[in-house]
Amino acid sequence: MKIDQLQKNIETHLELHLKKMLPKHSISEAYLYASLPPGKLFRPLLSAGVFLFHNPDQEALFEDYKTAPSKLASFLELHHAYTLVHDDMPCMDNDDMRRGKPSTHKKFGQWQALLVGDGLLGASWQLLAQLRHPHALAYFSYATWSLGPKGLLQGQVLDLSEEMTLSFDNLIETHILKTARLIQASLVGGYLLSQNPNLKTAKAYHRLGEALGISFQLLDDLTELTEPLGEHEKKVNPWIWALEESKASLLSNLNQVTNLVPKEAALLQEILALYFAGIGKKIGPKMAPLNQYLSDEELGPIISLLKVLGHA
Amino acid sequence: MKIDQLQKNIETHLELHLKKMLPKHSISEAYLYASLPPGKLFRPLLSAGVFLFHNPDQEALFEDYKTAPSKLASFLELHHAYTLVHDDMPCMDNDDMRRGKPSTHKKFGQWQALLVGDGLLGASWQLLAQLRHPHALAYFSYATWSLGPKGLLQGQVLDLSEEMTLSFDNLIETHILKTARLIQASLVGGYLLSQNPNLKTAKAYHRLGEALGISFQLLDDLTELTEPLGEHEKKVNPWIWALEESKASLLSNLNQVTNLVPKEAALLQEILALYFAGIGKKIGPKMAPLNQYLSDEELGPIISLLKVLGHA
Repeated sequence: MKIDQLQKNIETHLELHLKKMLPKHSISEAYLYASLPPGKLFRPLLSAGVFLFHNPDQEALFEDYKTAPSKLASFLELHHAYTLVHDDMPCMDNDDMRRGKPSTHKKFGQWQALLVGDGLLGASWQLLAQLRHPHALAYFSYATWSLGPKGLLQGQVLDLSEEMTLSFDNLIETHILKTARLIQASLVGGYLLSQNPNLKTAKAYHRLGEALGISFQLLDDLTELTEPLGEHEKKVNPWIWALEESKASLLSNLNQVTNLVPKEAALLQEILALYFAGIGKKIGPKMAPLNQYLSDEELGPIISLLKVLGHA
Repeated sequence: MKIDQLQKNIETHLELHLKKMLPKHSISEAYLYASLPPGKLFRPLLSAGVFLFHNPDQEALFEDYKTAPSKLASFLELHHAYTLVHDDMPCMDNDDMRRGKPSTHKKFGQWQALLVGDGLLGASWQLLAQLRHPHALAYFSYATWSLGPKGLLQGQVLDLSEEMTLSFDNLIETHILKTARLIQASLVGGYLLSQNPNLKTAKAYHRLGEALGISFQLLDDLTELTEPLGEHEKKVNPWIWALEESKASLLSNLNQVTNLVPKEAALLQEILALYFAGIGKKIGPKMAPLNQYLSDEELGPIISLLKVLGHA
């Protein structure tokens, strides 16, 4: 299956899954508004890429919204959507816009956004509860750990308390918790739904997810530098206050991603390529604003790695 | 096991369970503050009452925090605690006090309360993921339905949108969703962890939970009348705007509770008696403020039923 088709199916199923869980009530507009259209579906695609690598003859499972891999994909996206709704609220990041439209609390009100976030979180677990698979409980356990108080939520705590800016170690811990955990839940989830998963490979995906999450977030911080930063962004952007460490960590994590992605996993590689090629273009050399922070020589190794990952 | 001892064990285990799931970080103070000391542990006690009725020789399971019934009890209480933290927030009910101390957002701040609520919700599912029991997945599925967007959360939506005051049917729907669903999850959960649960009995507990939830909430509204009400309370208290319907519904639901509680379930009866006797005292006849709304003759049948339930 081509990525486009996969993406289309995941989005169609996400809508079907969500609608089945929503009440016949006007609040459901807010649930749908907060989740659709989704972003790039990066996390669901990662889970699908891993699953199809280990089960190449089971593409048909992504044509039926009742299958475990399809429900896993929606679980991941709904979970992501809930974090965005809560993150945007005035008492959190106070963002008025999200994906080019007013954020949920701006459009529907604050209590609506709070409950819609809680509800999307509930809906995501509701989908997991529908997985009929020998490893469903094992995955449930892993997912609740990665996304719970010691996981994703603690990443949000470190971010909002600004403890993440106190040291580079804190920053990496925040990126692991806030960004990597959900990516790990995507990769490990896609693998656990395979026929005969083993612990060693599961651990490899766990490590890959960590490297991917850190790279993902450091690259995101780096692309921010291509536009003028406000005072708050300067304070939290590690490329400003930890340039050398950010560079070293990004390079080492991108290297790990290159090494850990199975060479034969064509679809998974393609999904990553799509993402990394996009970033590569944004921070290509001769990008004037970026040169305030990193010279072309310093950017070079980063770009090279992105080219490898983006098959450019 | 006596109720006191059971309550003590449940509280001790709750603290153990929660602490194991919390990060070594100052935010954990807020998690603990929001959940401990717990309230009357009504929901966990109900689950224990049902479980022990069907498994009278397994009291020891409540002496070990690693057992399924102990984790179920904590799951229910943590889930309850999360709803209180979010409900109290300024954009929701805006309550400064909870259980005689400042509410979580008053004590720790708003983003802290939002994330602690999300985290308690996450922690509650994390405990369910640890149940090693043949019916764990069936219960997970039931619980996500009862507490998700079509369940408890929709009850909060109907409450906050004040749609619950538009008709008595709306009010009852709100009470079923907002109050009864978690009580149903308690009773049905306690039953599903038994040796050989059957669908018919599970359904009976489901119905009992609904009748109990409605009575619980209507009695709570009734006790409010023993003190002078503010304008907002008058608007939402159904005894003011739907006196006859409230009375009829309360009587019929209390009757159902009396009929549906298994006669031989001594502990379950005792748990209910404890609660109902307390309410009975609060709204006894000759309660002057209440007589503005209900005469002694009208209160009579309610008190009689409470006496039956409270073994008075």
